[in-house]
Amino acid sequence: MTPSTSAQSIAPSSALTPQDLGVGARFTVAVMDNDFARIILAALASADASDLTVQTDPVSTLVRGSEQRVLEYVTSVIAAAARSGHHISATLLLSRGCPGEVTCTTTPGLLAEAAPIPTVAATGVRASAHWSLYPLDDTGRPGEAPDHLRDIYAAVDYAKERGTYVRGEHYATLLEGDIADVLSTVAAGWVLVGRSVQHVTSHVSVSIASPTSSTTTEG
Amino acid sequence: MTPSTSAQSIAPSSALTPQDLGVGARFTVAVMDNDFARIILAALASADASDLTVQTDPVSTLVRGSEQRVLEYVTSVIAAAARSGHHISATLLLSRGCPGEVTCTTTPGLLAEAAPIPTVAATGVRASAHWSLYPLDDTGRPGEAPDHLRDIYAAVDYAKERGTYVRGEHYATLLEGDIADVLSTVAAGWVLVGRSVQHVTSHVSVSIASPTSSTTTEG
Repeated sequence: MTPSTSAQSIAPSSALTPQDLGVGARFTVAVMDNDFARIILAALASADASDLTVQTDPVSTLVRGSEQRVLEYVTSVIAAAARSGHHISATLLLSRGCPGEVTCTTTPGLLAEAAPIPTVAATGVRASAHWSLYPLDDTGRPGEAPDHLRDIYAAVDYAKERGTYVRGEHYATLLEGDIADVLSTVAAGWVLVGRSVQHVTSHVSVSIASPTSSTTTEG
Repeated sequence: MTPSTSAQSIAPSSALTPQDLGVGARFTVAVMDNDFARIILAALASADASDLTVQTDPVSTLVRGSEQRVLEYVTSVIAAAARSGHHISATLLLSRGCPGEVTCTTTPGLLAEAAPIPTVAATGVRASAHWSLYPLDDTGRPGEAPDHLRDIYAAVDYAKERGTYVRGEHYATLLEGDIADVLSTVAAGWVLVGRSVQHVTSHVSVSIASPTSSTTTEG
C-alpha cells in the first residue's frame, strides 16, 4: 500500500495517462436561485470537455484528465454559472497520486510525470476562496523526513507572488481575485507539491457575489 | 514546525481548550432558492451556539469549540436549512492539531487530549456526501513509519460498521443516510485519527434533495 519510491527510475517518456497517475477533480457548483438546475446544466454544457471524462452524480461532478485541461474545464463551468449574476458557492477537490482509489497503489513514475504549472486566462469574474493543500507524504524526500508544512509554505509563497493571497485564516488560506487566478493558484500548489510527494490533494471553497458581510458570535 | 512527539507525557487533566488544540470547523451551506439569504440566516440563528465561537464571512462560517459541540452545531444548521425543502449543497472542513494556523506550532498534549467519538440524534433529513480524510502525519507512531492510508482504512471500516458507507469513488468515499449519521461518521474518522496523528483534517461535500441523476460524458 505504501507508495513506491522508485519513481525517479522511470523516464517521463513512459506516456502514463492522467488516469494512470490518478489526476483529476471533483467539484460542485451551487447557484442560489430557483433556476439553479438550468443554470448549472447550461454551464456544464458550455465548457469544452474534449480530452476529459466528466461524470455528474447527485453530490459532485468528477473530471478526469490532464492538470491543464481539468483547470480549464472547472474554471469555465464556474465562470459560466457566475455570469447568471446570482450568488455562487462552489467547492473543488483536486487529487493526484491515488489512481486505484480503494487500494491507492501508486504508479511508478509518478513524480517524474509532474506537469507544468497550468494556467487559464482571466474571466472577469471575481471570487473569494478558502484554500487547503494536503501533501500526504509518508516517505519524505531522499535524505529528509516527511514535512507537510514545508510544502504548504512553498505553495503559499507562490500564492503571494501570484497576488491572490490575502491572509492565513483558521484552517484555510483566504485567496481573492479573478476566479481564473484563484483556481490557477490552487492548481499550482497542487502541481508543485506533486513534484516531490506521491499523493497530494487540495480543496477550495469559492464564493462569488456573496451578500454576506462578516459577523461573529461568541457562545 | 514539526509537531512535537512529546504528547504522551502530558496528562489529559492539563485542561487544554479546543482553541489550544486547534479543534474547529469551517462550513458553507448553499440553498438553491431565491430566498437563500433568509433561509441560511434563520438556520444559523436556530442552532445552539453556546460554548462556541461562530464567525460568518463571505466564504464560510468558522466554528470553534469541542468536537461534540461543533458536530451538534453544524448538523443543526444544515438540517434546519434542509427543512426549507429546497436543494441544499453544503461543504464542511474539520481540523485538529494546527492551532497557530500560520505557523502551525502544535500543542504538547494533543494526542492525550483526543476526544470521545461525538454523536448527534437523527434529524429525519437524508443526505448523500463525498468524504475525504487527511492524516497529516510527519512522524508516524512509535516504531512505525507514517502511513496515512492505514488511518483512512480504519475510518472507512468504522463507516461500514456505522452503515453510512456506500462505496469508495474516485478521490472520495460516498456516504449516505440521515445527515446526523453522515456527519457523525465524518467526525468519528477525524477524532479516531486524532488519537495517533497530531494534525488531521476532513472534508465532506453534502447534497440534500438533489434533482440530479448520474450522467457521464467521455470527451
